[in-house]
Amino acid sequence: MVLEKARLEKQIDFLETLGELKNIFRANSIIGGTRRENSAEHSWHIAVMSMILAEYAPEPIDSLKVLKMLLIHDVIEIDAGDTFCYDDEGNMDKADRETRAAERLFGLLPEDQSIEFRQLWDEFEEASTTESRFANSMDRFLVIFQNYRNGGGTWKLHDIPKSKVMERQMPVKQGAPALWEKVEEVLVQSCRNGFLRDDEAADS
Amino acid sequence: MVLEKARLEKQIDFLETLGELKNIFRANSIIGGTRRENSAEHSWHIAVMSMILAEYAPEPIDSLKVLKMLLIHDVIEIDAGDTFCYDDEGNMDKADRETRAAERLFGLLPEDQSIEFRQLWDEFEEASTTESRFANSMDRFLVIFQNYRNGGGTWKLHDIPKSKVMERQMPVKQGAPALWEKVEEVLVQSCRNGFLRDDEAADS
Repeated sequence: MVLEKARLEKQIDFLETLGELKNIFRANSIIGGTRRENSAEHSWHIAVMSMILAEYAPEPIDSLKVLKMLLIHDVIEIDAGDTFCYDDEGNMDKADRETRAAERLFGLLPEDQSIEFRQLWDEFEEASTTESRFANSMDRFLVIFQNYRNGGGTWKLHDIPKSKVMERQMPVKQGAPALWEKVEEVLVQSCRNGFLRDDEAADS
Repeated sequence: MVLEKARLEKQIDFLETLGELKNIFRANSIIGGTRRENSAEHSWHIAVMSMILAEYAPEPIDSLKVLKMLLIHDVIEIDAGDTFCYDDEGNMDKADRETRAAERLFGLLPEDQSIEFRQLWDEFEEASTTESRFANSMDRFLVIFQNYRNGGGTWKLHDIPKSKVMERQMPVKQGAPALWEKVEEVLVQSCRNGFLRDDEAADS
């Protein structure tokens, strides 16, 4: 009984701590551009996205595992913060900061769940399975629509050229190849509309 | 090929529309009390909660179905708005408003997914299965910790007495009975701390 009690207390402590992800803001804005997006609502959005786009995975996937990975993949940002993907300096010590964060945060949970969550996060980061590659593709795919609908968003704000965005979108090609054509289409249209700088266009 | 294209367009249209849930604000604040919580981040929080507290369901549950229900249960608020649970007038036409919203919003999806999402939402609303009762319990359980950590939150703001909160928490008793003791404990402590008005206390 005492043990059971301690277990629930740990779980609630973790759940309350999770709330802090609502105060971690990403570089991009929500559609409409009124404010920056936080990592909790972002995680929700790409989780629902995975329910809808599962059919574009290259083979049948374990949807439960994908959902779990997407729901917890950003939890480490509570300690490590969100690192803007095009911030070269910030990305140098990102892995270290995030590993320490995973240890502390998942360590709040009872041991069995701590291990489960850490494994899910490791699998997502390693992107070595069909599920984790698909999950990573979802994490990348959404932002191109957000930036497009916001007239360029972070691409324009930080003058990110098309070639860099293409590179950043590579996980889509790997995790959901059937969606790659759509990525190309949106980026070409973004360049045409002046939302994105086309550094690959012929000079002529 | 033309058909395939139309399918993906519908899916992306729905996914972009989902972003509007980030602008739907609930009555309660996030922990810390700095601002009101939106329904997208709330959905994320209770979805992760269901991963952690699944063991408190009265029998083994289909965790994938629970996650899907929790992730989409508030989508109808994009059209219908969030109705504060203690707002008697707002709750009179809530069902009508939400049904119309479900028809329009899930109707944006390709037909097979539209049917799947509508069934998930109906099951959640009817609370007639172990999964949907557990999902409803998660939707209720979190807010007591948010209000407690915020020194009373919406209970204090709207002078909601303990008996009303207990009534509102009944889905926890039904969907996750092993957590009921915790509900009672937090509410008793809330009364002691002056966060909640105890209308059930003996006069003596």
